[in-house]
Amino acid sequence: MTEYRRLRVALLGAGSVGAQVADMLRTHADELADRAGAALDLIGVAVRDVDAPRDVALPRELLTTDADELIKGADIVIELMGGIEPARSRILAALGSGADVVTANKALLATHGPEIFDAAEQVGATVSYEAAVAAAIPIIRPLRDSLAGDRIRRIFGIINGSTNFILDKMDREQLSAQEAATLATELGYLEADPTLDVEGYDAAQKAAILASLAFHTAVPLDAVHREGITGIDAAAIDDARRAGRVIKLIAVCERVADDDGDAISVRVYPALLPREHPLASVHGGNNAVFVQAEAAGDLMFYGAGAGGVQTASAVLGDVVSAARRHLAGGIGVGESTRANLPMLPFGRICTRYQITLEVRDAPGVLAEVSGILSDGNVSIATVEQRASGAEDLDEGDSTAHLVIGTHRAREQDLSDTVDRLAASGVVRRVVSVLRVEGD
Amino acid sequence: MTEYRRLRVALLGAGSVGAQVADMLRTHADELADRAGAALDLIGVAVRDVDAPRDVALPRELLTTDADELIKGADIVIELMGGIEPARSRILAALGSGADVVTANKALLATHGPEIFDAAEQVGATVSYEAAVAAAIPIIRPLRDSLAGDRIRRIFGIINGSTNFILDKMDREQLSAQEAATLATELGYLEADPTLDVEGYDAAQKAAILASLAFHTAVPLDAVHREGITGIDAAAIDDARRAGRVIKLIAVCERVADDDGDAISVRVYPALLPREHPLASVHGGNNAVFVQAEAAGDLMFYGAGAGGVQTASAVLGDVVSAARRHLAGGIGVGESTRANLPMLPFGRICTRYQITLEVRDAPGVLAEVSGILSDGNVSIATVEQRASGAEDLDEGDSTAHLVIGTHRAREQDLSDTVDRLAASGVVRRVVSVLRVEGD
Repeated sequence: MTEYRRLRVALLGAGSVGAQVADMLRTHADELADRAGAALDLIGVAVRDVDAPRDVALPRELLTTDADELIKGADIVIELMGGIEPARSRILAALGSGADVVTANKALLATHGPEIFDAAEQVGATVSYEAAVAAAIPIIRPLRDSLAGDRIRRIFGIINGSTNFILDKMDREQLSAQEAATLATELGYLEADPTLDVEGYDAAQKAAILASLAFHTAVPLDAVHREGITGIDAAAIDDARRAGRVIKLIAVCERVADDDGDAISVRVYPALLPREHPLASVHGGNNAVFVQAEAAGDLMFYGAGAGGVQTASAVLGDVVSAARRHLAGGIGVGESTRANLPMLPFGRICTRYQITLEVRDAPGVLAEVSGILSDGNVSIATVEQRASGAEDLDEGDSTAHLVIGTHRAREQDLSDTVDRLAASGVVRRVVSVLRVEGD
Repeated sequence: MTEYRRLRVALLGAGSVGAQVADMLRTHADELADRAGAALDLIGVAVRDVDAPRDVALPRELLTTDADELIKGADIVIELMGGIEPARSRILAALGSGADVVTANKALLATHGPEIFDAAEQVGATVSYEAAVAAAIPIIRPLRDSLAGDRIRRIFGIINGSTNFILDKMDREQLSAQEAATLATELGYLEADPTLDVEGYDAAQKAAILASLAFHTAVPLDAVHREGITGIDAAAIDDARRAGRVIKLIAVCERVADDDGDAISVRVYPALLPREHPLASVHGGNNAVFVQAEAAGDLMFYGAGAGGVQTASAVLGDVVSAARRHLAGGIGVGESTRANLPMLPFGRICTRYQITLEVRDAPGVLAEVSGILSDGNVSIATVEQRASGAEDLDEGDSTAHLVIGTHRAREQDLSDTVDRLAASGVVRRVVSVLRVEGD
């Protein structure tokens, strides 16, 4: 048995991920030491309540409520508390004392990333966060290192497992939105407060992190256009299925040529995808990320997007890397944000829409709708008129559904046009407005 | 414009990858400097003949035939000559002078990896080789770093683009093996000497590299079981298609529980996959690698498996990382081979087979064939008897085809049994023997 130098590892937080990390650090100690070239001694786990029940039992003597004291003696600090404070202060304290930091805290990185990376650079320490996006799927390191010599054009993917689980259940098992959400909660895919997931905040945080790395630019979270899945009902899913499509909550990070040079667009919204698209077959809580780079071409990364043990795998990979760097000496290398590209306003993005309208079934209606679209610089690709269901029928003034597919048009033009359609006399109701991607 | 420290980069070789790397180092100089935190000055390109035609024109004054002299002044040496010598000596010389090395040389790493990694460790330099496997698909770094805290159980994938192109053309366009190979040569997928690809040597080299990383064990190339695709003809492809399957050249790196503890098996062979398997839809020259890890679960990496510009992307990612390390100071961290697991003899692997036999169409034949299988410890899963084509018919002694699917059995038992079948009086000819994977 090799005698290794010993590194002191402090863990902040013992929730579903933290408890797994603590357990694996202890049960896999020998092989982790072999890989890191150093023994990784877990010196303590900071928790709010030492008596709270845990997913994995931890020795009582490792638990402490004094995080500040624990941090002081550590070479590597693993932050798995989540939330902004006190996570932020503790990470800054850890960096201040020269420790390397490993975190899975996407909310914190998406809002305070530059402050934390600057603090790390000041002291030559590293901040690693493979677990912050797409759990165990290696995506941070590939973007940061493997593709560092290339120009990334576009990232396109499913990066929130909870909403994918819900949409997948609605599509494949015809559950209602409510039934699917209840099942997701029961199975642990949704938190008690599901807002973070279903409103797209979680995906937006991850997208900001990916875009910052990919485009070497600090992308602020509030520059990410975000729409959740709460507007998606069983009818929309059924319509999509009948049209050979599927609805997925997707994240798009794009470098686009704008009038004044390249700019960045980062957005999260539900979109219609053709059923043959590779993302259409990403089921359950899985994630998949496509990366399009100038030289590398199209790359795809796929795997479980959540889960305590999967996320723990990513955390431990970062811990081993941090330990290697610690042994190697030298300083950590900060994030490169030197490209500093501007953000493209969302209204200037070009997308395709599918607009479903409930209209009066009368002569001239299609002409009027077409006129509004053409006045708004939105070019029609396809139109389908359907008789409405029986419940909509009204003697003497019947109703039809108009499903309009548009060509690519500016978001601003599209949303203005939808407003004008809604206000027009012939449109009874805008049933749904969905973006179309991937074909 | 930031003033950066300057690092001296030497390039050995200016073939299709080398010329692209030289071109990108020059045309993307500013953004590479921003990402690396250092200006990457290409100080020279060592070639055999300075007047040879190149894919991308390079300034005459960069070219030199004196590689030894070029290496002496470099901080980072990129080796893209290929082959064992003089690549090996030059890499050792570069490491000896303290340079970091970036290489795409799979043949060299699969045969002399430990020597090269040891030399790097002696001087605290790094050897990076993301481009050696699956071109621009990030797989080396994910295995080495992102999954360093996990236990990898299995790697399963398509890692040779040329043979995938050939098999795909045979399957989807019904080309003969010869027609597909000719097309592959015309399109640059096959070298003038196709042996390295079609006999599975290239895939075996890559598999040895992946297995070494995944299992923290130096896997020698001659421990990799290797079979190529030269035995696969149009009839086999057609039979597979009719059975809802596809033939792919796959690589398997496995950690298996053997009688005396865990051992490693690494093998490359053509295998039948169900058409719904994700690897079945990997077309053309693309590669896809599945990684199954204990905590991370199933991960998949997909992208172009070859190509000058794609491989150059991977090389430049390594160059930027090497530059960052150079700036950071400290020593490079060597490969971890401390697990040092034994290799499992190929005969002890358990696989499923599909055996196609030409037999006498007479009473008792099936009983005799079944008896031979059962005596050999090979359990039959499915049997299908087909009348042979008209050309095989012979009045008074007709012939049938027997397609036998087996349950999992030991390779040694399976191959002994096939030998006994071939020698038996009732079997006229062993038409094909193919492994079945992925379902």
